[in-house]
Amino acid sequence: MHRLLLSIAPVALVVASPAWAQERTSPDIRDDQRAAVARIIDEGTSQSQVMPIVQHMTDVIGPRLTNSPQMRQAEDWAEQKFREMGLTNVRREGFEFGRGWSIERSSVRMLAPRPLQLTAIPIAWTPATDGTLSAPIVVAPMSDPDHFARWRGQLRGKIVLISQPGTGEDQTDPLFHRLTGEELSALDRYQEPVNDPEQRRRSATRGTFEAERLAFLAAEGAVAFVRMSYRDGKQLHGEGYLHQAGRTAPIPGVELAAEDYRRLTRLAASGTVPTLEITSDVRFDDTNTQAYNILADIAGSSGTGEYVMAGAHYDSWVAGDGATDNAAGSAVVMEAARIIRALGVRPRRTIRFTLWNGEEQGLFGSINYIDRHLASRPAGPAGETGLQRYLAEATRFPVTPKPGFRDLAAYFNIDNGSGRIRGIHAEGNVQAMPTLSEWLSPFRAMGATEVAIARTGGTDHQLMAAIGLPAFQFIQDPLEYDTLTHHSGSDTFDHLRAADLRQGAVVLAGLLWQAANADAPLPRSPLPRQPVVTDPFATPTPED
Amino acid sequence: MHRLLLSIAPVALVVASPAWAQERTSPDIRDDQRAAVARIIDEGTSQSQVMPIVQHMTDVIGPRLTNSPQMRQAEDWAEQKFREMGLTNVRREGFEFGRGWSIERSSVRMLAPRPLQLTAIPIAWTPATDGTLSAPIVVAPMSDPDHFARWRGQLRGKIVLISQPGTGEDQTDPLFHRLTGEELSALDRYQEPVNDPEQRRRSATRGTFEAERLAFLAAEGAVAFVRMSYRDGKQLHGEGYLHQAGRTAPIPGVELAAEDYRRLTRLAASGTVPTLEITSDVRFDDTNTQAYNILADIAGSSGTGEYVMAGAHYDSWVAGDGATDNAAGSAVVMEAARIIRALGVRPRRTIRFTLWNGEEQGLFGSINYIDRHLASRPAGPAGETGLQRYLAEATRFPVTPKPGFRDLAAYFNIDNGSGRIRGIHAEGNVQAMPTLSEWLSPFRAMGATEVAIARTGGTDHQLMAAIGLPAFQFIQDPLEYDTLTHHSGSDTFDHLRAADLRQGAVVLAGLLWQAANADAPLPRSPLPRQPVVTDPFATPTPED
Repeated sequence: MHRLLLSIAPVALVVASPAWAQERTSPDIRDDQRAAVARIIDEGTSQSQVMPIVQHMTDVIGPRLTNSPQMRQAEDWAEQKFREMGLTNVRREGFEFGRGWSIERSSVRMLAPRPLQLTAIPIAWTPATDGTLSAPIVVAPMSDPDHFARWRGQLRGKIVLISQPGTGEDQTDPLFHRLTGEELSALDRYQEPVNDPEQRRRSATRGTFEAERLAFLAAEGAVAFVRMSYRDGKQLHGEGYLHQAGRTAPIPGVELAAEDYRRLTRLAASGTVPTLEITSDVRFDDTNTQAYNILADIAGSSGTGEYVMAGAHYDSWVAGDGATDNAAGSAVVMEAARIIRALGVRPRRTIRFTLWNGEEQGLFGSINYIDRHLASRPAGPAGETGLQRYLAEATRFPVTPKPGFRDLAAYFNIDNGSGRIRGIHAEGNVQAMPTLSEWLSPFRAMGATEVAIARTGGTDHQLMAAIGLPAFQFIQDPLEYDTLTHHSGSDTFDHLRAADLRQGAVVLAGLLWQAANADAPLPRSPLPRQPVVTDPFATPTPED
Repeated sequence: MHRLLLSIAPVALVVASPAWAQERTSPDIRDDQRAAVARIIDEGTSQSQVMPIVQHMTDVIGPRLTNSPQMRQAEDWAEQKFREMGLTNVRREGFEFGRGWSIERSSVRMLAPRPLQLTAIPIAWTPATDGTLSAPIVVAPMSDPDHFARWRGQLRGKIVLISQPGTGEDQTDPLFHRLTGEELSALDRYQEPVNDPEQRRRSATRGTFEAERLAFLAAEGAVAFVRMSYRDGKQLHGEGYLHQAGRTAPIPGVELAAEDYRRLTRLAASGTVPTLEITSDVRFDDTNTQAYNILADIAGSSGTGEYVMAGAHYDSWVAGDGATDNAAGSAVVMEAARIIRALGVRPRRTIRFTLWNGEEQGLFGSINYIDRHLASRPAGPAGETGLQRYLAEATRFPVTPKPGFRDLAAYFNIDNGSGRIRGIHAEGNVQAMPTLSEWLSPFRAMGATEVAIARTGGTDHQLMAAIGLPAFQFIQDPLEYDTLTHHSGSDTFDHLRAADLRQGAVVLAGLLWQAANADAPLPRSPLPRQPVVTDPFATPTPED
């Protein structure tokens, strides 16, 4: 009784909820992890708010391209929502990103040899057409600066098709898939870290080729460019990376559905050069070039400064509504905050909920968080792009921890769509695996069973794990994430699965709670150092 | 030697080809079926023209909606092509169909609560918008006249969403599939013919509801209607059936991608009624309301009037280029003609190649062929729609054979996409099965192995088989036919498979040749009669 009174005393300072009366009779859930989990499961199932949250993000706000008007609305809404939930220290942390951009209206038609409305989307951060633009096409695939010579002098006044058309593939795997037990177990496979200087060199040029090709097109007098969708079946994506002021593409660009693109190339090859009509009514907004991470806390009682954190990137591309990528993860993070807040008990360590921004263009938000709070690394060359920085980040040594480095006791990232949590990637941290396994154990019957050693990348835990922090990404059922929805026009609310998202919020809340109240923080990997070249006499991997 | 000279004598009358010299030394392929098949395989593989033929139909001509300008171009091209191949009696047979219709330009946008370009297509034979039309939506699903009362007085000035939105489904089957041996064998299963008067009654009303609903919408002052795509993943189709002059929809109508449609209904349900902007620039052409089947012969030597026939419908919907449905089958029929013509030998029976028209709206072309050449049946009520006639046709007795009834020795229909031929449906004709099996035997190693008893429907052999003619539909690997391409915007050349189409043309040519030169025509089913009600005291099947 004494302990109970002590433990709930701090709660009285921050909570004034109807749940208060029943607090007094429950066990001390700070010390009884299973009791807390029981309440988390109840709150996250019978009182779930994850679907209304994700519906607001997707249907009402819509796609959330970093710095777009819709992302500004999303930033405000998330802060307000965290405050309504009673979280504290709700704030935004800004960083330089670039221009706002949004689509007002777009249309691409074939005018000749026959009228045909094509399936197309403007590429992010490309400029508008001045009204409507019509021109013949030229098929001039360029994926390397070596290809420019082949097309010099042939592009003036043309709409240039820059992709290799290829042919369709037999889609023999189901679009929708849940992991089998066998597939789950196969994830727990150790992979030696690779240090391949040649691969690093190639990566470093990847971030600049897009701008080089555009400069070539503009210099040659091309009037617009068209690239092909990388998915068949009329899917569109529209990713673009020239978001900084001063780096905007010099000519308009659109992505065409693969079927439509290939038809154009076949017609051109048969000697009938098609003429296209492009209308791309897109808008830039340069009123504020800062993007913002949104952070909110449930304050801990320990006073040590230690915290555990959950994060998901909130930004998206614009072809769909960014539902599975990553309103899903964002809503799971917010719902986990709501569930834990509803416990009405202060955790030992602070629990932080973070919605990252600028993830899609190179983990801008989480890199900024690292720079600001966690560690410093040698700077890259001036004028480095987001993609270049991201690709170089894991190889810039030494890592110099900041004072906040020790405070982050665990970070959980969620960014693999709407599928339920089936386990967690330990991201090479072998010491943490038994504890992660123990924390997952209450959720085995919900399908969350696997702790896999593998390192994963491409999202916001990656560069935290790369500097030795206990940062983890969940294993989720893929559903249609890789096959259909990721970045595509089909990334809408209907492709979310409610039961999966409820499970995700429950598991995330459960792990956060247990991590926040654990006696000791999670063990950490050794501080990473510049690796030696693993196999200096190996045959270099061929250029891809 | 004597026989050989005799057998090639008629050929000299019709063939003057460089192949002539080698004719004199080949075995008499009219009597040696395997020798003919060997030459058919060689011609259909090493000299195949099926891909250039199908590319012209799809990329160059494009979709071939019955009576559209593109179908007129396609009719001329097919006749010319058959003549170039040296076929005789190349002709068109016309029948009353209705209006020409084509899309010049279209766009559907959400204006409020946020600007969004939606994925949409005008519904076939709906009228154009007068420029651009903007209005708020109302979600008023109506699938039965009983539903009209619910929405009376609420539709004036509105864009009416007429479909039930439902939710997305887990697509756990692969898009692309080839039949396993087990699946093939399972097709050989006898099904007793059903005679359910209740089902007949329901079918008879199906053809009229679309017009009834449109009359209701117009009377209530709705400005346009929107229906939802029946496939997820941004697929569009655009089928419409009001092609006769005087039956055109009174207001414009569009089909929206399921993702876009459902978003509108969720927004409306959340209290934010979206406003849409619709531009549907479509064109009618009433200069000729007749549609045409295209027919061409390789004349037989027997002089009996007997013929064997291959057919495929040439018309398509307009969301894609009608590639797998059914430029594929049409090209296989034309290529089979070319292959057989290249043998340089006159068959015993005439071989007829037919491209049907108006199939998609109710088998208009093949019904006209039956009426004109094969049999008569009691007339339906005046003003009967194509769909009503189609649905009633199999139940109108007695069947009165015309003189041409006995002449048709075999009909092979191909209309299941681009997949290779895996066998043939005997369509209930048990007597024909051993012969069909024998004719298929040279193609076992190409995957064509199965003769299955089942009756199949929905395409042009159906009503020939229904009056007791030896009319058969091939079994084909489905590839993506049912899952993706059938009627959709993804029905383009890239979704065809060249090796499959070559195999299809070879197998079809092989069957035609063997059927044309067989000693006896195929056995026929008994002349069908009005069935008695199979099970008069059974529980009626519930309304669907």
